[in-house]
Amino acid sequence: MMQKVDLIIKARYLLPIRPQHHVLDYQAVVIDQGVILDVLPVDDLNDRYESNHVLNLKSHVLMPGLINAHAHSAMSLMRGIGDDMPLMPWLEQRIWPVESQLVCDQSVRDGTRLAVGEMIRGGTTCCNDMYFFPDAAADTYAAAGFRAVVGTPVIDFPTAWASDIDSYISRGIEFAQSLADQPLISASWSPHAPYTVSDVSFERIRQAQETVNLAIEIHLHESVAELQPSIDAHGVRPIERLDRLGFLNERLMAVHMTVVTDDEIARVAEQGVHVLHCPESNLKLASGYCPVERYRQAGVNVALGTDGAASNNDLDLMGEMKTAALIGKMVAEDATAVPAAYALEMATINGAHALGLSDQIGSVEIGKQADLIAIDLDYLETMPMYDLMSHLVYSASRWQVTHSWVSGRSLMQNRDLQTLDLDELKATARTYQQSIEAMIHGS
Amino acid sequence: MMQKVDLIIKARYLLPIRPQHHVLDYQAVVIDQGVILDVLPVDDLNDRYESNHVLNLKSHVLMPGLINAHAHSAMSLMRGIGDDMPLMPWLEQRIWPVESQLVCDQSVRDGTRLAVGEMIRGGTTCCNDMYFFPDAAADTYAAAGFRAVVGTPVIDFPTAWASDIDSYISRGIEFAQSLADQPLISASWSPHAPYTVSDVSFERIRQAQETVNLAIEIHLHESVAELQPSIDAHGVRPIERLDRLGFLNERLMAVHMTVVTDDEIARVAEQGVHVLHCPESNLKLASGYCPVERYRQAGVNVALGTDGAASNNDLDLMGEMKTAALIGKMVAEDATAVPAAYALEMATINGAHALGLSDQIGSVEIGKQADLIAIDLDYLETMPMYDLMSHLVYSASRWQVTHSWVSGRSLMQNRDLQTLDLDELKATARTYQQSIEAMIHGS
Repeated sequence: MMQKVDLIIKARYLLPIRPQHHVLDYQAVVIDQGVILDVLPVDDLNDRYESNHVLNLKSHVLMPGLINAHAHSAMSLMRGIGDDMPLMPWLEQRIWPVESQLVCDQSVRDGTRLAVGEMIRGGTTCCNDMYFFPDAAADTYAAAGFRAVVGTPVIDFPTAWASDIDSYISRGIEFAQSLADQPLISASWSPHAPYTVSDVSFERIRQAQETVNLAIEIHLHESVAELQPSIDAHGVRPIERLDRLGFLNERLMAVHMTVVTDDEIARVAEQGVHVLHCPESNLKLASGYCPVERYRQAGVNVALGTDGAASNNDLDLMGEMKTAALIGKMVAEDATAVPAAYALEMATINGAHALGLSDQIGSVEIGKQADLIAIDLDYLETMPMYDLMSHLVYSASRWQVTHSWVSGRSLMQNRDLQTLDLDELKATARTYQQSIEAMIHGS
Repeated sequence: MMQKVDLIIKARYLLPIRPQHHVLDYQAVVIDQGVILDVLPVDDLNDRYESNHVLNLKSHVLMPGLINAHAHSAMSLMRGIGDDMPLMPWLEQRIWPVESQLVCDQSVRDGTRLAVGEMIRGGTTCCNDMYFFPDAAADTYAAAGFRAVVGTPVIDFPTAWASDIDSYISRGIEFAQSLADQPLISASWSPHAPYTVSDVSFERIRQAQETVNLAIEIHLHESVAELQPSIDAHGVRPIERLDRLGFLNERLMAVHMTVVTDDEIARVAEQGVHVLHCPESNLKLASGYCPVERYRQAGVNVALGTDGAASNNDLDLMGEMKTAALIGKMVAEDATAVPAAYALEMATINGAHALGLSDQIGSVEIGKQADLIAIDLDYLETMPMYDLMSHLVYSASRWQVTHSWVSGRSLMQNRDLQTLDLDELKATARTYQQSIEAMIHGS
């Protein structure tokens, strides 16, 4: 007897990532009520499932949606406002002056919407966001049907979002509790960095965890510049300090982690810390070389992020896979390091692990949410093809992504956005461009 | 009185590179008989020039066609046949076994044609090619209306192209002389590398220069592995050896140049050697970090190449600009190093200088050949826009290239290839995929 289901996607190639990490030919993914009900050869389909919605992807690979493990989405409004600048002039002359005039509930909604549009078009279906006004960002993700973990910020200076630590904590708790009915959105604590968050503030987060038990995301060991100030102020390097404060565990998402000793790698491996690697940001800001292969050999879970569009300058996780694989080899001085298959894991299942969502997403497995993308390989740029995974990492582009689903809901179909209005996004970008140009030039 | 011309291209933005290296608004480029006759504001156009062919690019930047300063074009047939492998197993287990069965006049024509199609689609209008059967490659470039410098190989072992040094030299002279009537194609000598070319063979090239005076291209100081063998065999490092042999001058195009001393940088600067930088290949093979900023500060001309698709795995010079700018900063430990404007010069005018073609191409200047491309910026991925050059390097993709001309002849129009048949290229790629897969698996 045939089972009626919501959607059947047939694909020339399937890359499930888990349970097996190799390419399967002519597979069908059967989706009902947002969940992957079955994965089976197309030939076995006809006598088992039927649907009013059957899609046949003749030259595509179907795979899990990419997970952008570190983004500052609303900063898409500031894409490229300051390049080829050192970190402090970039912050002091460009980012902070603009942010001081720009950041509010509405601009976070608008900037996040631009980012979601770009991410969907590039094959990303979930992101881990760290910015201000997390409630505005969360609304935006939910409205677009996009999955997100949204960090609620903690930083030791006043911003438009909160004026002091009491306010950061109380607004954070309120934000986390507001998400109870949001299936796609969850919250994390996002203390900005060791050098902008005091021990007192970390202690306040620890106490708040008794009310809302969240993952923690922090920029950590981004560059050598943050090490000596930590030693001066706290007597130890930031990783050691976080350990003493009780944060060095499997709930910690440590962003960047470029400058580390063998002992520190062993410690984060042992304590289950997740590393969120942003290779293009690290290179562009000359922050440091992240030793991905050493983390991998030590058993550390490494996920992949774009960082914000103001410092990257895109939210292109396929590009980030290529960069991670390329620079990872050179850093390891070994052409076999960070192979294509591992780059694909960083951008999918490892991101899911880091975000605490690996029971729901990160692979095409029965019982998981149907967060999927399709990439068309019928382009000169990916021909001939001897190894599909290699092509996804080294040759294909986000411009070849054609379809996207989150929990079975279509977000993009043949490159047409389904939950966002592309013309409206472009008009929004143009409007902000004018006002931000005025801010930069002080007029 | 109005002057009648072949083609007028109006563009929202013009990036001429030379004489000025900044963005101009609403410019027209006037083309006649393949040459740039004038560059002027659109508003000044109407009473001076008229044409039956006027193109109005409303959201595009018009700029010089990109110059791929180092490629092995025919190797596109082998795109991705061996990744995440060290150099020697990659050569011994993959490249050489396949090449021994594959390389012939016809396969070089077919592989080069795939490469030309990919390069045109990615905004490249000229490449510097190094492979076997240069005559077959040259025919292919000429037929597609693509500009190329084609190296005639010299290597101290027999190949399908030539059996011994006499044959490499005589076929090279014959090839160079055959190009007398080819306006778009010129020849270079391409001794493969210091470790595969003996002093005797270099001396034969030097003698042949009395007959055909060509530029010289060689892989040089690609990785640390080639240094000690040179010291053992010749008593000096390869750069010093080439100097003693009389090759270290402004006619030398030195590919890779990752491992160099301050003295070597000073010497190549003083002697006018051109460095052909292939950042993605260097990273992927873990060859070494090319010190681009140090070359730049020393006054060395650095051009940009993709290397072959078998080791990259694409011929995407826009991607290569981004990678060069990113890794160049980290290598210099300075976020201001290798800025976007310089990355654009590496991919255009510096390539023209290296190839000895800077009087003809590399910038949008009156009197130069009309080798131009247009890139559409009206995409979410390049919005908002505060700095066009930054967006070209850090945010835009080769997939946004819409038009391409060489000497005023259209090679691509609204992404449609004009001189090649895309369906035929894809069919060719599929055919070779099958036969090369059989070679890999020994069947």
